[in-house]
Amino acid sequence: MKQKPRIIIIGAGNVASHLGNRLFEKGFQILQIFSRGKEKAKRLASKINADFTTDLNEINDKADLYIFAIPDDRIGAVAMQISQKTSLKQHLFVHTSGATPSIVFQSYFPRFGVFYPLQTFSISRIANFEEIPICIDANNEKDLELLEGIAANISPKAFRISDEDRAKLHVAAVFVNNFTNHLFHIGTQILEEEGLSFEMLKPLIKETVAKLDHQKAIEMQTGPAKRGDQTTISRHLEYLQKHPVYQDLYQKLSQSIQNEELGKKKSAS
Amino acid sequence: MKQKPRIIIIGAGNVASHLGNRLFEKGFQILQIFSRGKEKAKRLASKINADFTTDLNEINDKADLYIFAIPDDRIGAVAMQISQKTSLKQHLFVHTSGATPSIVFQSYFPRFGVFYPLQTFSISRIANFEEIPICIDANNEKDLELLEGIAANISPKAFRISDEDRAKLHVAAVFVNNFTNHLFHIGTQILEEEGLSFEMLKPLIKETVAKLDHQKAIEMQTGPAKRGDQTTISRHLEYLQKHPVYQDLYQKLSQSIQNEELGKKKSAS
Repeated sequence: MKQKPRIIIIGAGNVASHLGNRLFEKGFQILQIFSRGKEKAKRLASKINADFTTDLNEINDKADLYIFAIPDDRIGAVAMQISQKTSLKQHLFVHTSGATPSIVFQSYFPRFGVFYPLQTFSISRIANFEEIPICIDANNEKDLELLEGIAANISPKAFRISDEDRAKLHVAAVFVNNFTNHLFHIGTQILEEEGLSFEMLKPLIKETVAKLDHQKAIEMQTGPAKRGDQTTISRHLEYLQKHPVYQDLYQKLSQSIQNEELGKKKSAS
Repeated sequence: MKQKPRIIIIGAGNVASHLGNRLFEKGFQILQIFSRGKEKAKRLASKINADFTTDLNEINDKADLYIFAIPDDRIGAVAMQISQKTSLKQHLFVHTSGATPSIVFQSYFPRFGVFYPLQTFSISRIANFEEIPICIDANNEKDLELLEGIAANISPKAFRISDEDRAKLHVAAVFVNNFTNHLFHIGTQILEEEGLSFEMLKPLIKETVAKLDHQKAIEMQTGPAKRGDQTTISRHLEYLQKHPVYQDLYQKLSQSIQNEELGKKKSAS
């Protein structure tokens, strides 16, 4: 059997840890962890039987794949530094970012791509990779196949996604994850300042999401905006006067729901 | 053992059906269903061993509780009509609306209240009442106890909630259910017009919600707005130019997330 690709991970944060653990669990050899933070690098490295370094100049040149799992705005700078080490330059470099085009690597390396796990990771939670889509891309067919092989090893859901499509996926992800979470926060705020518990809303939230498995979101839209119930909308806006930002969001989101309703009626007539 | 309260349900839609079925399942006698739509009334009545009528003047006066499960804007008018029948006037009337104050009944009946199941119901889905909070209220202690007894029979989560608190709960519910669902729709739209599948985002959505059981929403906020990543935000806004309404929402929601971050920093300093 062919040996599994040996991997080096640049980064020791959330994504680096979850991905590193999963790769290790699936039998990949993680040669080395790089992080500027020694303790973080050491901790992750010791868990997955890897070496670690805090010095970019000491990055091992024996790996088949180098995964950047660092903040988006650091990818370019770190790539530039690494590319100055000639023995590394010809290797395959990928990043795990949803928002960053793969061509961030173009000026530094001849072989590059993306290995983007589409999930929100927390240090304190176990990531279920069986459910995590991995979006991969590379600038040549052979590397694409290599990445595909690795992705298929750690998740049943591996997809080839171009830079362009990944950018759109990321915009959509911001709406359904980051913005949704912010709405949960607003709900929490409204209740907590009245001494009510957010627990009361959890069954509603869970059902809203569970329904997605059976219906499209547009078909299960309910509420005052959808019904055109101006009395309730006005009452809610009045209540939200003490939270001008939330009030504005309420108005904008209601307006957007009503636009969709108008659109549906038009396309039906 | 004391006989369980006998109930009449005004309405035969989503809430009426789910609530009627649950009450019947728990051994309550549903005397009658009223709905203007004969087929709907008949269908629900036959399932829960009740009579039905399409005529408000024929509403039975032998029940202990009359539950209005009709659109918010019809509650007042139907209450007025019913109150003209003297034999009904002294009974207990409640509605199932999150948005409507109980005092909508005040001019018509001496005994009134609310029986509000905090959930989003669909005809096609089984409602899990074990998980549904029931918010009750009444204008006198005896009726409050009666409603509490009924609520406790159909759900382990029965709460006394005043009109004022229920209004706030409802505003919060609009944010976490109606608006969240709309964000899911926006995500769907963005992906579908690019030929990408919404399925890819479902694990992310499920994890966002699963995390709520362990962390407060504010603590698990991630994304470009939270990081202050202007490069990504600008790229996303540019992409959203073809959807001005979504673009505006993106901007407003990002701004609101950044406000919270500022607030956190201020309160920490």
